[in-house]
Amino acid sequence: MSSTVLYMSMSLDGFIAGPNETPDNPLGDGGERLHEWPFPGTEGGMNRQVYDEFMSTGAIVAGSGSFEPAGGWGGDHHDGVPIYILSRHPAPTWTANWPAVHYGNDLEGAMRNAKRAAGDKNVLVHGASTAQRALTAGLLDELEIHLIPVILGEGRRLFEHLGAEQRELERIRVLEGEGGVTHLRYRVRL
Amino acid sequence: MSSTVLYMSMSLDGFIAGPNETPDNPLGDGGERLHEWPFPGTEGGMNRQVYDEFMSTGAIVAGSGSFEPAGGWGGDHHDGVPIYILSRHPAPTWTANWPAVHYGNDLEGAMRNAKRAAGDKNVLVHGASTAQRALTAGLLDELEIHLIPVILGEGRRLFEHLGAEQRELERIRVLEGEGGVTHLRYRVRL
Repeated sequence: MSSTVLYMSMSLDGFIAGPNETPDNPLGDGGERLHEWPFPGTEGGMNRQVYDEFMSTGAIVAGSGSFEPAGGWGGDHHDGVPIYILSRHPAPTWTANWPAVHYGNDLEGAMRNAKRAAGDKNVLVHGASTAQRALTAGLLDELEIHLIPVILGEGRRLFEHLGAEQRELERIRVLEGEGGVTHLRYRVRL
Repeated sequence: MSSTVLYMSMSLDGFIAGPNETPDNPLGDGGERLHEWPFPGTEGGMNRQVYDEFMSTGAIVAGSGSFEPAGGWGGDHHDGVPIYILSRHPAPTWTANWPAVHYGNDLEGAMRNAKRAAGDKNVLVHGASTAQRALTAGLLDELEIHLIPVILGEGRRLFEHLGAEQRELERIRVLEGEGGVTHLRYRVRL
């Protein structure tokens, strides 16, 4: 059965971007440190295994804050799988010729459509706001956190605005990646 | 050589206590969830290994916010090792007959005295404020984070008030403890 899986790189102190995020500085100051691990992606390594895994998902649900600063991944994140973008604004005109890209702000609908499109494959979920909304709505099945061996000190946190609700997780995998990156996989207990 | 090692239990979302901490509710709402793992401490298990490790340290540096709500550990955390408590207030009178307990607010002096007292053993560092001060002052050698498979949503964070200074860590050990607790050990790179 298809699962919705959040894939996010996070510093040990919980940040997914550095401070001073702007359109020209989308990862914030120092935030690029969190995204070094998938490159060069040595064959046979743990980092490559995790990279290949999320590049084998069957659909994507992400926020416009992830999608737009990344140039919309050229309209094709991988293999032309459908991309559901959560946004309060309409799709920018530069996405008009990308048939795989679907804008909207209905998280539940996006997750349902993505699961249907993914078939037996998993759905790649990405972005801090999307993660928070999906957790709150009970629509996130699993989390794969790429824990980076760095303390950023300031920036944007992955886990915020969740309210005081205790959510139990089941640890299902720990992979010791190259460069000190630890890939932690959890299932959200319902 | 003796190292100063922070030992802290933390939720996946970075909290070391739940919300609404008070003297009567020192771990905050739901915070006890973070401290189940050392008990019952099965022989031969990973959790027991880590527990035995911090119970073999040669001195302690902690904040009064850790020490006082815990009843000052009866004046003896383990084996009568010296306990250096960082506090802006004088030692409470109920600690007067505990020779191992030393109050003060000089972090550098406490760390130096603790290292000297510990000899070849490590120094157990504990408490969020103490961790933040020690990291900022460059006086923390290692971190051992017991990552608990739970999202608390609100509470007190371990990593706060550190300023936008990027600190590189070296991952030196990952232990998959019982109950989904992952013990992550890092050395702070200077």
